[in-house]
Amino acid sequence: DVGIRDYMTSHRTIQLPGLVNIAAFVPGLVSRDSNDLQEVTKASIAAGFSMIRVMPLGKDGSISDAKSLKIAQHNSKRGEYCDFNFSVTATSNNAHQISYVADEVGSLFIPFNHLSDNISKVAAVEAHFEAWPAHKPIITDARTTDLASILLLASLHNRRIHVTAVTTKADIKLIALGKEKGLKVTCDVSVYSLYLSQNDYPGCDFLPTLEDQAALWKYLDTIDVFSIGSLPYQLAHFLQKPTDVSVGIADTLPLLLTSVAEGKLTVEDITARLHDKPKEIFELHDQVGTSLEVEIDRSYKVPSTEFWSPFAGATLKGAVRRVTFQDQVVCLDGAMLSVVPRGNDMSTHGAMPALPVVS
Amino acid sequence: DVGIRDYMTSHRTIQLPGLVNIAAFVPGLVSRDSNDLQEVTKASIAAGFSMIRVMPLGKDGSISDAKSLKIAQHNSKRGEYCDFNFSVTATSNNAHQISYVADEVGSLFIPFNHLSDNISKVAAVEAHFEAWPAHKPIITDARTTDLASILLLASLHNRRIHVTAVTTKADIKLIALGKEKGLKVTCDVSVYSLYLSQNDYPGCDFLPTLEDQAALWKYLDTIDVFSIGSLPYQLAHFLQKPTDVSVGIADTLPLLLTSVAEGKLTVEDITARLHDKPKEIFELHDQVGTSLEVEIDRSYKVPSTEFWSPFAGATLKGAVRRVTFQDQVVCLDGAMLSVVPRGNDMSTHGAMPALPVVS
Ligand SMILES: [Zn+2]
Ligand SMILES: [Zn+2]
Ligand SMILES: [Zn+2]
Ligand SMILES: [Zn+2]
Ligand SMILES: [Zn+2]
Ligand SMILES: [Zn+2]
Ligand SMILES: [Zn+2]
Ligand SMILES: [Zn+2]
Repeated sequence: DVGIRDYMTSHRTIQLPGLVNIAAFVPGLVSRDSNDLQEVTKASIAAGFSMIRVMPLGKDGSISDAKSLKIAQHNSKRGEYCDFNFSVTATSNNAHQISYVADEVGSLFIPFNHLSDNISKVAAVEAHFEAWPAHKPIITDARTTDLASILLLASLHNRRIHVTAVTTKADIKLIALGKEKGLKVTCDVSVYSLYLSQNDYPGCDFLPTLEDQAALWKYLDTIDVFSIGSLPYQLAHFLQKPTDVSVGIADTLPLLLTSVAEGKLTVEDITARLHDKPKEIFELHDQVGTSLEVEIDRSYKVPSTEFWSPFAGATLKGAVRRVTFQDQVVCLDGAMLSVVPRGNDMSTHGAMPALPVVS
Repeated sequence: DVGIRDYMTSHRTIQLPGLVNIAAFVPGLVSRDSNDLQEVTKASIAAGFSMIRVMPLGKDGSISDAKSLKIAQHNSKRGEYCDFNFSVTATSNNAHQISYVADEVGSLFIPFNHLSDNISKVAAVEAHFEAWPAHKPIITDARTTDLASILLLASLHNRRIHVTAVTTKADIKLIALGKEKGLKVTCDVSVYSLYLSQNDYPGCDFLPTLEDQAALWKYLDTIDVFSIGSLPYQLAHFLQKPTDVSVGIADTLPLLLTSVAEGKLTVEDITARLHDKPKEIFELHDQVGTSLEVEIDRSYKVPSTEFWSPFAGATLKGAVRRVTFQDQVVCLDGAMLSVVPRGNDMSTHGAMPALPVVS
C-alpha cells in the first residue's frame, strides 16, 4: 500500500508524483502581455499539477506560426509556477511553415472542433503528416468521421496519434477497436466528462450524454490519460457563470480521489493517467524533487467562492495537502506559499527518441 | 496487335470481350412494375455491355430490405437483354436485417452521397462491417473525410472495399496512398468525369473541376474500373434535359475509343477496366459466347436524337459494330436485332471465394 496513516487526524495521506495536465487551456495564450499562463500555472501547482502541456488554442487565437509562438513565449517570461510546454496548431495551409518551429514546441495539434479553428480537408491533414517531424507527437480533437479519417492517415503513415477530450461512446469504441487492431493511438478524457453529462446541463452538447458517460467508464482501460482541457471553461461560458482562467483545475484530483474512496478507481488508475502515461506519450522529462501529499479519506464540502465550480456544495473526498516542486514546498493545505516562480519551458526537451546504443 | 483490317472499308475492327458496367443506374428500380431495368439492359447490350451490376439506389427508393429486393427481382422477370446482378444498400439501421439477403445479392453498397440515402455515423458503418459476410464485396461512394473513415474501417477489419465514382483529386490521391500502403481498396471513375468538368457545366458540383479531372487522368493507374454510374442521369436532371433511363450508356465506349485513337489510352486500358478488373473485383462469372466487334478508326459525328447527350454533335472515333451474347448476334451496326431477352440474374453467383485446392 502506498498510503501512510496520520494518527493525529486518523486520515490517510498518500504521496503522489507531480501530476501532468496534458491539455491546459490558457484563454489569453497569444494575447499580448496576458497574465493567463501565470495564473493557470499557479492554479495548477496548487492543485498538484507540476507540468502542463498548453493547448495551442486560446480564446482569442492560436499558436499557428513563429510570430504567435513568440507572443506565447514572451508571456511565459512573467514567471510560471510549474513547468510547461507549448504546442503548435495546424491550419489548412501552415503545414510547411510550422515545420520550422517544430523544435521549439512539444507537439502538433490538429483541431477539428475547437472554437474557431478546425481543419476539414483530408488533404490539409495529409500535408501535416508529411511535413511534421516523424518523431514528434501529434494530437487531435477529431470526432466521428473526422476521427476515423485522421486515424487512417496515422495508420497509413505509421504514426502515433493522440486523441484528446474523447466524449462519446462511438469515439471511445473506435479508439478501442483501433488499439485492438494495432493502431498506435492513445487518448484522453476530460475529467469533467466523467462526472458531468448533458443530463446535468441540457443543451450542453460538448458534454457526454449519460450513455456516452457510461461508455467512458466502461472503456476505462482504453483511456490512457485524464485531462482537464477546455471543457470547464466551455461549460462556464455556456452557463454564463463568473469564472477565471483556472476553472476546473482544482476540481480534478478531488473528483478522481472521491472515485477511489467509492471503489470506482484505484490510486494507480490515477497516477497512470496523470503521470506515467502522459510522460510516456509526450516524452516528458521526469521532474526531480517534485511530489504531492494528498489526503484520501476525509469528506468535505466544496466551498462556494467568487469563482464558479459546478461542484461547489458537493461532498468530495480527497484533497491536496502539500505540493513539493524542485525540492521546495510550494503549497500547504491548499494555500500557496510565497515562492519565486521556478517553472521552466520544457517545449524543446525530450522529443527526440533515444538513439539505440550500439554495443 | 488485337486488331484486324477490314479491307473493304479500310477501317480497323477489333474484338473485345463483353463489357461490364459495375454501376448501372436504374431509376425505377424498386417502383412496382417498372420497365426501367429492361430498358437499361437493352441500351447496355447495344452499347457492348453484356453484364451490369445494378446500383441498389433508384430515383424513388433503394433495395434496402427483403421486400424492396423482391420488387426489383419481380421487375427483372420482364426479360432482360444482358446479365445483371443486384446489390443491397446500407442504411443507418438495417445492418442485421440485410445480412439475411446477402446470398441473393452481389454486394453491399454503403451510400454517403447518393440522392436521398446516406449514412453519416461511423457506428452505423461499423455495424455493417460486422454483419456483412466477410467474403462479399462492399462498395461505397464516400468522399473526403467519409472516404477516409470507411477506409479505416476496412483496414481495421481487413476487408476489401471498392470506392465508386471517384471525382476529386483529393480522393484519388487518398486511394493511391492507401494502395501504396497495402490497403485492399479498389475504385472506379465514371467515364463522364473523364470528359466533362465543371468548366463545361458551371455549378455542376458532382462533376470534377478541371484540376480534379487532370488528376484523374494522371492517376489512371490507380483507377481499377471505368463505370457509367448515375452521373449522366444526374447531369441530364441538373440541366433539365429530356432524357430516358439509358442516358450515357451509348456514349461510354466511343468516348474511350476516341482517347485510344488520340493515344491517351490503349485498348488494354479499356478492357482491363471494363472487363478484367470488374470480373476480378466483383467475382463475376465469365460470360461464354459473348463478345463485341468495334471499329476504332473512323470519325463520325454523334447524331442528335430525341434523347439528350452532352456529346451530340461532337466528333468521336470508335463504334460498336456487332454484339454477340450467348453465341447469338444481338446487335448489328448499332441496331438491336429482334431477339428474345436472355439475360440472367447473376446475383447469387460467384461471390464465394474459390476453395484452395489441396494437392
Ligand atoms: Zn510584454
Ligand atoms: Zn502522406
Ligand atoms: Zn533529458
Ligand atoms: Zn515522475
Ligand atoms: Zn408485376
Ligand atoms: Zn468491427
Ligand atoms: Zn461458376
Ligand atoms: Zn471475359
